[in-house]
Amino acid sequence: MINITLPDGSVREYQDGVTGIEIAASISEGLARNVLAVKVNGQVWDLTRPITENATIQLLTWNDDEGKATYWHSSAHLMAEALEALYPGVKLGIGPAIENGFYYDIDLADDKTLSSEDFPAIEQKMLELARQKSEFTRRAVSKEEAIAYFTEKNDPYKLDLLKDLQDGTITFYTQGNFTDLCRGPHIPNTGFIKAAKLMNVAGAYWRGDEKSKQLTRVYAITFPKQKDLTEYLERLEEAKRRDHRKLGKEMELFAFSEKVGMGLPLWLPKGTMLRERLEQFMRKAQMKAGYQPVVTPHIGSKELYVTSGHYEKYGADSFQPIRTPNEGEEFFLKPMNCPHHCEIYKTRPRSYKELPVRLAEFGTVYRYEQSGELHGLTRVRGFTQDDAHIFCRPDQVKEEFTKVIDLVLYVFKALGFEDYTAQISLRDPENKAKYIGSDDLWEKAERSIIEAAQEKGLPTVTELGEAAFYGPKLDFMVRDALGRKWQLGTIQVDYNLPERFELEYIGSDNEKHRPVMIHRAPFGSLERFVAVLIEHCGGNFPLWLSPDQVAILPISEKFHDYAHKVNELLAEQDIRGYIDSRDEKIGRKIRDAEVSKVPYMIIVGEKEQENGIVSVRKHGLGDMGSMPIDAFVSNFKAVLAEMLS
Amino acid sequence: MINITLPDGSVREYQDGVTGIEIAASISEGLARNVLAVKVNGQVWDLTRPITENATIQLLTWNDDEGKATYWHSSAHLMAEALEALYPGVKLGIGPAIENGFYYDIDLADDKTLSSEDFPAIEQKMLELARQKSEFTRRAVSKEEAIAYFTEKNDPYKLDLLKDLQDGTITFYTQGNFTDLCRGPHIPNTGFIKAAKLMNVAGAYWRGDEKSKQLTRVYAITFPKQKDLTEYLERLEEAKRRDHRKLGKEMELFAFSEKVGMGLPLWLPKGTMLRERLEQFMRKAQMKAGYQPVVTPHIGSKELYVTSGHYEKYGADSFQPIRTPNEGEEFFLKPMNCPHHCEIYKTRPRSYKELPVRLAEFGTVYRYEQSGELHGLTRVRGFTQDDAHIFCRPDQVKEEFTKVIDLVLYVFKALGFEDYTAQISLRDPENKAKYIGSDDLWEKAERSIIEAAQEKGLPTVTELGEAAFYGPKLDFMVRDALGRKWQLGTIQVDYNLPERFELEYIGSDNEKHRPVMIHRAPFGSLERFVAVLIEHCGGNFPLWLSPDQVAILPISEKFHDYAHKVNELLAEQDIRGYIDSRDEKIGRKIRDAEVSKVPYMIIVGEKEQENGIVSVRKHGLGDMGSMPIDAFVSNFKAVLAEMLS
Repeated sequence: MINITLPDGSVREYQDGVTGIEIAASISEGLARNVLAVKVNGQVWDLTRPITENATIQLLTWNDDEGKATYWHSSAHLMAEALEALYPGVKLGIGPAIENGFYYDIDLADDKTLSSEDFPAIEQKMLELARQKSEFTRRAVSKEEAIAYFTEKNDPYKLDLLKDLQDGTITFYTQGNFTDLCRGPHIPNTGFIKAAKLMNVAGAYWRGDEKSKQLTRVYAITFPKQKDLTEYLERLEEAKRRDHRKLGKEMELFAFSEKVGMGLPLWLPKGTMLRERLEQFMRKAQMKAGYQPVVTPHIGSKELYVTSGHYEKYGADSFQPIRTPNEGEEFFLKPMNCPHHCEIYKTRPRSYKELPVRLAEFGTVYRYEQSGELHGLTRVRGFTQDDAHIFCRPDQVKEEFTKVIDLVLYVFKALGFEDYTAQISLRDPENKAKYIGSDDLWEKAERSIIEAAQEKGLPTVTELGEAAFYGPKLDFMVRDALGRKWQLGTIQVDYNLPERFELEYIGSDNEKHRPVMIHRAPFGSLERFVAVLIEHCGGNFPLWLSPDQVAILPISEKFHDYAHKVNELLAEQDIRGYIDSRDEKIGRKIRDAEVSKVPYMIIVGEKEQENGIVSVRKHGLGDMGSMPIDAFVSNFKAVLAEMLS
Repeated sequence: MINITLPDGSVREYQDGVTGIEIAASISEGLARNVLAVKVNGQVWDLTRPITENATIQLLTWNDDEGKATYWHSSAHLMAEALEALYPGVKLGIGPAIENGFYYDIDLADDKTLSSEDFPAIEQKMLELARQKSEFTRRAVSKEEAIAYFTEKNDPYKLDLLKDLQDGTITFYTQGNFTDLCRGPHIPNTGFIKAAKLMNVAGAYWRGDEKSKQLTRVYAITFPKQKDLTEYLERLEEAKRRDHRKLGKEMELFAFSEKVGMGLPLWLPKGTMLRERLEQFMRKAQMKAGYQPVVTPHIGSKELYVTSGHYEKYGADSFQPIRTPNEGEEFFLKPMNCPHHCEIYKTRPRSYKELPVRLAEFGTVYRYEQSGELHGLTRVRGFTQDDAHIFCRPDQVKEEFTKVIDLVLYVFKALGFEDYTAQISLRDPENKAKYIGSDDLWEKAERSIIEAAQEKGLPTVTELGEAAFYGPKLDFMVRDALGRKWQLGTIQVDYNLPERFELEYIGSDNEKHRPVMIHRAPFGSLERFVAVLIEHCGGNFPLWLSPDQVAILPISEKFHDYAHKVNELLAEQDIRGYIDSRDEKIGRKIRDAEVSKVPYMIIVGEKEQENGIVSVRKHGLGDMGSMPIDAFVSNFKAVLAEMLS
């Protein structure tokens, strides 16, 4: 008998040689139906491989990233089988799982390649083969046998791969009529694959070497349910529609100019107003939370970065220093705001009574990125952080953490991000020497972060050894409307900069003490945040952010004066309206306002003008009836207040 | 007889050989009493020098800069006479007029120097000599005679000066017992000098050469009335009290750090809030005036500046380029925002219908200055412009100019600058070839500017030949509360950048046309503007800018709750209040609030709490009586509205 430890810590006894699928069946029938692979002592195995000693295991399903990867890797074998059936003589390169699906590099005879017209037949063949529920079987082979097999098959790529493999480590996997050189692991059988879609083809040099032959890389994805595929394709379409680069252009939010420089966004008027509203929102929230705004220059002298320690890290891959007529004087574009804020902290002596000092700045920083790495607003060379640094006493860390969590959650709520988790990164307990700051400080801070997160009811994951060398941190991971994960809002404790800048405060004991520093930026980079927000809401911004909040639609020219009067009343209440004064039918005006996603429409005609009222429609919801302007305004403000509460 | 043309264009006939003083006397007795010198065909002459041909003249008084300069130059001779009387054997260097007063470089025997204790005796001696009303007399001397005179007098410095002079051009001026080598001109006699004050002494190398002897530079100032001196000294004291570097530190508005870099201000929380209010004020005014905000990066690629033409002007005295890992890619810190705005204009085709496009940005720019040139916030290496660029059709220039003038005057009014003039800089009509842009465009633009200024009733000076090569401009000169002049708010027409960037719009004729560009920045640099504003109002900011607007002073702790309630009500109305909750007598609280210059005080005690009212005091004005909070708020808002109307 051997002991099998499950993820929840429970230990079960099984016969020596038990397999993953047997363990799954012993737990529940449903699990046995859905399990794809098993992780044994940290390694993913086939479900049919016997476990012969005590082990910690995890049964992997579609919900686990490693389960999915196994599934897609097996799907690549299935696609290869289909391709061989349809294109006899096709030669095969490699076929791994990737983030979304898998690919196989193939070499069709006579330099033929595939086009999307060929995809349906391949998908059909894959599903036909899948329905046979062929088992994936593993077999250890000698190198000699392997070479003989692929020589016989006339597959030069597998033979090339074999060159690097050592005898005794080589395995074949077979399902149906297809055998591949493969380490595995694989899912039990092809029956799990219920939906398949070839996505596209691209050229790919064998082994990534430009001098080698160019193969055809076939990208595809599979799912255990047809519905999952449909949803995936819809999400893909939606992601394309929502691409912030596309919407940013259509909505005239931002632009790039090669002359100004790649990766340096130009914010157009509408984008700037959006940015300003976001900044204003954050400024207000931060004021309430006791932050003090500061402004610092976009460059700093070499000495500043020698002190902060960043100087050592400037390398050939960074923006180079800015020399001046005075040889002793050299500046750098600032890559972060913290050194400047440390210098502000130092402009006068600080007492324990005035801590925490919370310095906030919308600070634009510059970091060089290779041009190939640049991507819309998510990867740029200059971006504005909603940055702040909290200088506090060690006993204030927990309270400050709690307050920052409150602020981040307030931001998420106001912007419609409802699905988030927090990752707490702590020291590696096995290797405490590599961290700066005393053991006592670390323990206190780590406990503070864990307690603060618990008290706020955050769903958290804790990662040991993921802390920076200068302090533990908490990151928020947000899932957007398309299910993609984004890291937003890091809260980082720092014992390093206070030390390097020799920051001090006079304690109640009249002695000098070193404050703790906390870095935090709920948006992170404003540029990246706007990109995420655009894609999250498909350009359909929350009411308070929306460039236009109300479309005023006069039924005919006769009511333009009344429309202007309504617009002025709204403007007095800081409600952003515009009048559609075109000579169009009201139905057309309503349709156009719906398309342009303006949150409210106000229709004014005879009845409204006579009674001094407005007829209101809400985007996506339709008619809300007639009401006095006052009533509309209070209704509007109540909705806003709820969002921003 | 000769014809004398006066500044008003009138021509009078005088006897050949008439002198300035005679002309003055022929006009009015008062003028004859006050005239100091005469400008003849552009050159300043002694009043006693005969005019022997037709001439255009201007009689100079204390109100003319050249009149003052002559007066102070003569005062330097008077001081030299006094010094010779008190310090026999003193050797004299040079003694010119300067912006405020004059100096004389002297060499006392035995390396002796002067201290402020010696000043009163010298001043007394000067006034004693002045009362003798000694005439300044001019005499042409030969070089030989001049050398003989100063050899006899044993004055090595005058002998050194004589080396560079040509025989036939040398004149002596004598008053009382003192004769100096001097070109003149001078005032008629020492009697004009009624008040004298030695300001300070400093070391100065002879001829500015470190290898020469160090002389003692004696700075002094004189006035035609004792009252003028008193006022001048008061203004000096006041300027010291108001020095923005001093107030900026005391009020914790900004700071400098050598580590961050010289000339790179760090805006502290209170200064940042002040800055933000100024920006918000301007943003609002600009929104109303149809400007569109944009945000652009603080760097631009080399290509951008090659196109704009700035690249040629980057020299060894500028911030050097920022190199990158990619050798072909080089950036510059942006010294101005216009090239970036041109690129924004170009992000899409423009139609004549959408012009003018007015792009506004609070753009921070960087320009290298020698460290010796840096001065507080008035001369820095990084500053934020309230910049905007108007792209318009040639026929829109006048209207746009008018609107910008409106905006500038609105800013001046809101900030309490009531004394201003405008300078219009036009082409040199003799040298039209050196300007770019067609003759027709220039004529139209110059006429537009002149008409716009006239229609707005601006007091203007027009300067021919002062236009930039790329367009005419209008500058505002503002006189602050201490009488000092500042240039604020330039409006500059530009035909160059639209050409270089190949900017276009499609006209009503469906053809491509080139827009005209107008640069404008009412504050200019926000940093410099804040410095001027601090000194103008002595830190006593206008109500709407004031960091704290209302001090709420509870008579005792019993009324703290009511004080908080009042403060919350004010906060709801966006009025910035604070509560003085110290355990101090109310008299002390009032005095302290007066000192800290908070514009309003609200006193709350028994009576106020019971009746739900507040007792109000206004800074500098005292008791305004009791009133309901509502009434205070409306009163307050009315004052604000008046300022910002």
